[in-house]
Amino acid sequence: MTVYLVGAGPGDPGLLTLRGAELLGRCDVVVHDRLVSDEILAMVPPWAERLDVGKVPSAGDTQAAINDLLVDRANRFECVVRLKGGDPHVFGRGGEELAALRAAGIDAIVVPGVSSAVAAPAAAGIPLTSRHASSGFTVVTAHQDPANDQVLDWGALARLGTTLVVLMGAARARSIALRLIAGGMAADTPVAVVTDATLATQREQRMTLGELGTEPVESPSVIVVGAVAALDLRPHLLALTEDAR
Amino acid sequence: MTVYLVGAGPGDPGLLTLRGAELLGRCDVVVHDRLVSDEILAMVPPWAERLDVGKVPSAGDTQAAINDLLVDRANRFECVVRLKGGDPHVFGRGGEELAALRAAGIDAIVVPGVSSAVAAPAAAGIPLTSRHASSGFTVVTAHQDPANDQVLDWGALARLGTTLVVLMGAARARSIALRLIAGGMAADTPVAVVTDATLATQREQRMTLGELGTEPVESPSVIVVGAVAALDLRPHLLALTEDAR
Repeated sequence: MTVYLVGAGPGDPGLLTLRGAELLGRCDVVVHDRLVSDEILAMVPPWAERLDVGKVPSAGDTQAAINDLLVDRANRFECVVRLKGGDPHVFGRGGEELAALRAAGIDAIVVPGVSSAVAAPAAAGIPLTSRHASSGFTVVTAHQDPANDQVLDWGALARLGTTLVVLMGAARARSIALRLIAGGMAADTPVAVVTDATLATQREQRMTLGELGTEPVESPSVIVVGAVAALDLRPHLLALTEDAR
Repeated sequence: MTVYLVGAGPGDPGLLTLRGAELLGRCDVVVHDRLVSDEILAMVPPWAERLDVGKVPSAGDTQAAINDLLVDRANRFECVVRLKGGDPHVFGRGGEELAALRAAGIDAIVVPGVSSAVAAPAAAGIPLTSRHASSGFTVVTAHQDPANDQVLDWGALARLGTTLVVLMGAARARSIALRLIAGGMAADTPVAVVTDATLATQREQRMTLGELGTEPVESPSVIVVGAVAALDLRPHLLALTEDAR
């Protein structure tokens, strides 16, 4: 009867919301992405149906199949949770699923989540904004439709003066760096790459924009570009990357 | 001994994280901002000390006093929660508090929260990103140091092609609209103003960028600028603003 589009947060189960946990604990069906952790899926009742629709980003046909699946299950069950990594509307195609459900006359409610765009820098000791170093932040993805890629003005992005956060950018890290430098961003702009953010396997690399992508970048990573990426405000004992400071 | 900088989320207590709720439920002291709801503060044990440090943004002396307060309490108690609206690093001065705690040799851990920049559009049926209408999003605040205000390139912001989210922008809404239009953004760009987002008192207004700020904007509001601000993907029965569709 109702589909809840729930943001699972960045990975750490403790960063799931209370509302998200409550819905997971009583849902009849959970339709989840690839990156949702086993610890979070363990909150689902044993009798509930679990459907892993982990997919290659930008697979249009797969998205249509997911929409159909959600409509089908919503017509047969009371509580369907569509569980997405991070937040449903931060490159999660939540809008497309909402539109499909609405067209089918099905109630859908979005439960926002902690985006890895916000949590990954924090987990690496980086303040996303700072009175002294950043007046805001911009979040983009490198995985998107080629047509849409044209919409983003990389020159404007380079000049903007906000912290830049790139999600799903591992495979195109070098291309992003070159576009930003071509757009006027200094090659010595600090960069942090945070992999498996908020998980026990989290690891980080610090570099300059000129160095970004000259070595392969692991996936999934969040790339932070800007003055704040040089910071590590974690207390000494908690720091993971002593060398980087 | 440890200070936890916890993001309280956008307002709805259900959008607090599991980790945030667990820490609130066992803290000795909570030092909170003005906008944190009573329902969330009710999670704090009755014997814990509650300190409301709600302050006018940009009050530098007040921030120093908060830093001193955190250091003092951390030296006297096991678990101190610094509770901030939204996320601690999204214009929350979390970085300054972390730096002060670190300088005093005190352990501090950030627990990210759901930012109202992400949750407010969702609560109004607006997808923050969309393959077809937005290739990313930029979050800025209108409340910041005058010096830092110069850092933001409004012309670049106008040209960028991402959804723009302005936090704490109610009082300067007209000024923001005029700067964006002067920077080249179309005056008919859709705008949504979401007030008291995710709370029972939530209300919304839809308009164009040219109209933004010609009438007073209530506080606290999140201002969303861009093509997606014309959307309302909530199901019919749940929609708050029938007229806007």
